Amino acid sequence: MGLLTKPIKTLDDLFVHTLQDIYYAEQQITKSLPKMISKVTNPELKQGLQEHLEQTRGHVTRLERVFQMHGEEAKAVTCPAIDGILQEANDIMGDAKDPEVLDAAAAAAAQAVEHYEIARYGTLIAWARELGRDDCASVLEQTLPEEKAADAKLTEIAEARLNRMAARH
Amino acid sequence: MGLLTKPIKTLDDLFVHTLQDIYYAEQQITKSLPKMISKVTNPELKQGLQEHLEQTRGHVTRLERVFQMHGEEAKAVTCPAIDGILQEANDIMGDAKDPEVLDAAAAAAAQAVEHYEIARYGTLIAWARELGRDDCASVLEQTLPEEKAADAKLTEIAEARLNRMAARH
Repeated sequence: MGLLTKPIKTLDDLFVHTLQDIYYAEQQITKSLPKMISKVTNPELKQGLQEHLEQTRGHVTRLERVFQMHGEEAKAVTCPAIDGILQEANDIMGDAKDPEVLDAAAAAAAQAVEHYEIARYGTLIAWARELGRDDCASVLEQTLPEEKAADAKLTEIAEARLNRMAARH
Repeated sequence: MGLLTKPIKTLDDLFVHTLQDIYYAEQQITKSLPKMISKVTNPELKQGLQEHLEQTRGHVTRLERVFQMHGEEAKAVTCPAIDGILQEANDIMGDAKDPEVLDAAAAAAAQAVEHYEIARYGTLIAWARELGRDDCASVLEQTLPEEKAADAKLTEIAEARLNRMAARH
């Protein structure tokens, strides 16, 4: 969850820190997706990632709403986890020359990103409810199914098309 | 997926590289869990993490079997994603003084770890099948439900106990 900007003493501190962590993560994803979209070839994958980029912009806005509801300034803290996941995506895609292999690598990288977000939003929703912030939980709950759907769509695309094509090479 | 030890040209290269990545990740998790277990207080969480440590050692052994079946030397490549996730776990737990808040942070960190593994094993199984390596897929498929069960158990413990306790502080 990145560099701590203040000591974690309470569940509320944890909640706010994790909000700042995922706020950073969503911003980095927004920056990384366009490059990934430009590199992939499979039209379904390209469209799926493009749609998810639009959704991700909405997730950033939703997080800003949660910060506001919770009386906190929207602030990002560096998140080494998402930095690591995106670095891996870059490394592996930068190296793959075959477009179908690159597509398979991109889909796998995007799924690792989705799973990171699924874990963090699940945690944030549980903590918001425990803190009596059902209003914040409700906003966060709009994002979680979109992350899960993006993961499921990537599985579908990857299994049905990319991998089968790449295996021929 | 860490530093590339050889160029990724084929789906087989991707499969082997990702095996090396998760092999490193499982090893790092084996090293990190004992410290986490020693720090947490909640007995169910402590026991759950202890059981998962035993399982994780089994996952390392299974990966060595897959390397062997696939005619590859078992080798780990640095995985910045798991390093980032574990660094976050360390940072957040090192800072939390309240034992119940620390437990909540530990459970959340462990869930981020599980989700990384769920993503990677899902990918590896799909690629193994596409490569016609149902034998490798079958071994990897023994691990995936254990990762999912560990995540589900953490959700259960976290939601039912830790968070409620931590919220009182």
